[in-house]
Amino acid sequence: MDVPVDAQVMQKIQELCYPQSVAVIGASDNVLKWGSFLMVNLLSGKFAGPIYPINPKAKKVLGVACYPDIAACPGPVDLAFITLPLAQVVDAIAKCAAKGVKNVVVITSGYSETGEEGARLERELVKAVHAGGMRLLGPNTMGMMSTHQKLYSTGSNAVPPQGAISMISQSGNLGAQVMTWAEEQNVGINKFFGTGNEADLNCTDLLNYLAHDNTTRAILLYIEGVEDGKAFLQAARNAAEHKPVVLLKSGRTDIGAKAAASHTGAMSGSFAVFEGAMRQAGVIVVRQPMDLIDGAAGSYLPMPRGRRVAIVTLGGGWGVVASDLCRENGLKLPPLPADVVAALDKLLPSFWSRQNPLDLVGQINPEIYCRALEEVVKSDAFDSVLTLGLLGSSAFVAGTIVSAHQVAPETVTMPMVEQMMAITGAIEQNVREEIVRLIKTYRKPIVNVALNRNPQILLAVGNDYVVSYSTPEKAVRILAGMTQFQNWRTAMGLPDL
Amino acid sequence: MDVPVDAQVMQKIQELCYPQSVAVIGASDNVLKWGSFLMVNLLSGKFAGPIYPINPKAKKVLGVACYPDIAACPGPVDLAFITLPLAQVVDAIAKCAAKGVKNVVVITSGYSETGEEGARLERELVKAVHAGGMRLLGPNTMGMMSTHQKLYSTGSNAVPPQGAISMISQSGNLGAQVMTWAEEQNVGINKFFGTGNEADLNCTDLLNYLAHDNTTRAILLYIEGVEDGKAFLQAARNAAEHKPVVLLKSGRTDIGAKAAASHTGAMSGSFAVFEGAMRQAGVIVVRQPMDLIDGAAGSYLPMPRGRRVAIVTLGGGWGVVASDLCRENGLKLPPLPADVVAALDKLLPSFWSRQNPLDLVGQINPEIYCRALEEVVKSDAFDSVLTLGLLGSSAFVAGTIVSAHQVAPETVTMPMVEQMMAITGAIEQNVREEIVRLIKTYRKPIVNVALNRNPQILLAVGNDYVVSYSTPEKAVRILAGMTQFQNWRTAMGLPDL
Repeated sequence: MDVPVDAQVMQKIQELCYPQSVAVIGASDNVLKWGSFLMVNLLSGKFAGPIYPINPKAKKVLGVACYPDIAACPGPVDLAFITLPLAQVVDAIAKCAAKGVKNVVVITSGYSETGEEGARLERELVKAVHAGGMRLLGPNTMGMMSTHQKLYSTGSNAVPPQGAISMISQSGNLGAQVMTWAEEQNVGINKFFGTGNEADLNCTDLLNYLAHDNTTRAILLYIEGVEDGKAFLQAARNAAEHKPVVLLKSGRTDIGAKAAASHTGAMSGSFAVFEGAMRQAGVIVVRQPMDLIDGAAGSYLPMPRGRRVAIVTLGGGWGVVASDLCRENGLKLPPLPADVVAALDKLLPSFWSRQNPLDLVGQINPEIYCRALEEVVKSDAFDSVLTLGLLGSSAFVAGTIVSAHQVAPETVTMPMVEQMMAITGAIEQNVREEIVRLIKTYRKPIVNVALNRNPQILLAVGNDYVVSYSTPEKAVRILAGMTQFQNWRTAMGLPDL
Repeated sequence: MDVPVDAQVMQKIQELCYPQSVAVIGASDNVLKWGSFLMVNLLSGKFAGPIYPINPKAKKVLGVACYPDIAACPGPVDLAFITLPLAQVVDAIAKCAAKGVKNVVVITSGYSETGEEGARLERELVKAVHAGGMRLLGPNTMGMMSTHQKLYSTGSNAVPPQGAISMISQSGNLGAQVMTWAEEQNVGINKFFGTGNEADLNCTDLLNYLAHDNTTRAILLYIEGVEDGKAFLQAARNAAEHKPVVLLKSGRTDIGAKAAASHTGAMSGSFAVFEGAMRQAGVIVVRQPMDLIDGAAGSYLPMPRGRRVAIVTLGGGWGVVASDLCRENGLKLPPLPADVVAALDKLLPSFWSRQNPLDLVGQINPEIYCRALEEVVKSDAFDSVLTLGLLGSSAFVAGTIVSAHQVAPETVTMPMVEQMMAITGAIEQNVREEIVRLIKTYRKPIVNVALNRNPQILLAVGNDYVVSYSTPEKAVRILAGMTQFQNWRTAMGLPDL
């Protein structure tokens, strides 16, 4: 049941994300200014089309030929970024229109966020943009990205890998930080929109676009407040029919709402009501910024068909901790059924606990623990599997071997180290491949906690990914979110993703 | 009101932590075995006294002269680690006693955790240990550390820096992972005890020791269950009179408790009752493993005298998010008092919001934001200060400058990059020093969220530290825990730490 969306708006957003040429009006060589940040990020990102810096006082900006005026650019300009002083913006908009620019992103601040006079100027800005047949992202925005177009055009130098996760953020600095985390944790990003004051294109428009964007696998939202709550709710529900939507709403509390009103002028209303409506719309609501990027990674897995989790752990303590966390997050840990126990009896030492969590009691033979893992993954008793320490244990062994060589180079020789590192590396790779195979074979999510120092949460295995968190609390929260999402889909009679 | 502790036990634990010589009975060159792990870690840690590997089948282990028998060691042995097969342990204990060993750490498993026969063997083990005038850590333990003695003797190759945080863990793998995080995040560790089956020395004994250990600034506890709840409670309360105690209790839920019972045989009882008692005893109770290490860092700050937080942020969105989190964690955000507003009016652009969170509206002059910070730190209206983005913003600028050089090496030349990197590095250092100065001058905690990629939560500034988390959720949780702790101390009439 798709809601009708404005086809003209969708087309404009498509053009915003896939320009063939861009201009930076207010470009600068001064590396402490916005006009430089944008240029640096566009150039670093290797945007394929022409980049035209515009600045009447420069011949070149960062080595790129500069033009005094957008009219002077030698080719067409699809998208213009504006970082001019406030008083010069409307004039620049008119020149963009004359040049045939399709969309503008206005970085400049000092508009409605500063009071009534700013609001008036913002209305004038929108009027000028619409008069020119264009649409506007901003003003007072941190910028945007469209990584598959190699369009890295924010004020932050975060360069997340290309991927399938898109984000809409009503805060530039929060959005920029999430992009930094995405880069650090290897979560591939597709599109990012800092919406700024939302004088024209707003988060609802962008959400409707991303819902139907086939290259976007999951949508992250940071929302402080929306003007038309009903339209946003409808857009969110529609998006959740197509892909996971993970939402961080701020202004949840009285003081947060006051801070939000001061920051953007947005009215946030009752969070309890908002959250209830969002959950009914199938949205995964989180409360911590890092949960956005953690949650995004879950979209690389099949969704769990129910709440029944099997835990497979290399250490007892971690199993206990994860059990509590599962329970506190609304998940269930049914006992191991008799057939699984019988199969595991053939694999594990006689004193294994025969319970869920399945404690592999320090079993370090990966062939055995992969076979044990398959027994629980294939069982009808479980909807999802959480592993603790199966990934990363080889790296752990490798760390000890390197230390051994350092303290006793004649006993643990370099050839021995190299051989064992090759073996442990191959083991880790095999375990990852096996996890991918099990996910594909049984269409169940396997979420892993890797007990090592690797900050990446998406580990590439060919064209697939293994999802690996640094703590059980993260893994359990994400699994709970995925379960809630799939329960909603099932209740709504929606097909599997 | 110190509880009476057994002086003889305290003396034995002191000897356990500060041995002059150690033996590893069951030492091995096989880098996949426990007897090798311990040797590697002792050698890597550069333990200053003699390390005697014991193994009748080897002349040397990892290049160190090996003895067939502890009796054959050429000097006295204060502490023996035993990693022998179960059947050989009691015999080795008798030989340790004959040699004059003061304490033993038994790594070997297969005791009470495996059932009644194991429990019987465990009773025999303890009997032999006591008959020899020794005390026992374990069996079935991951080992221990005493970093100021350079005694790194666990199965994990985590090498956290020397410091003031000590930990008692009823799970070896969880404890080892916390030590890995401590290393990664630069949280200095003093002592670590994996208590294993607690057949002799138990977590209550060790807690009593750490309470009176002047080199321990904060105590981390991972507890699955205790036999004598009353004694543990008394020890915890006593410890909290001297220093922060941060506790993760597992078996909080029915399924967690079942898993814990299966793992260690511990009975965990009602968590609600346990948690209530712990809070009344002044203990900071957390629910996520990472909160242990995050919480530990808070002990490097003065404790907040109340719930009133001032937020100082370089970006509006982060301020809103942190406001919600403060409120949800029981903290207050009073408005900025008139005198602070008046002082800030002289520093900030005219359109600043005059509210708490204090949004520095992208102000990137560190002199100004340090002066603004001092205005809120010194105000009587606030008990603690949370900064967002003040640390790490220089690194952020540096990242852009390096990218600028890469895309336009002739415009942004290497000498320019070097000069700007030196400037931004100096700025970051100045901001850190200024934060330390403000903390010392006003005796208030300043907790920082650094919006960059630095995983360290303790940043050294001379002999002092600045506390810096990667997310606002972490910073706010820790601040709430510190506030609860200080409220308890105030209610109990205890002096400031």
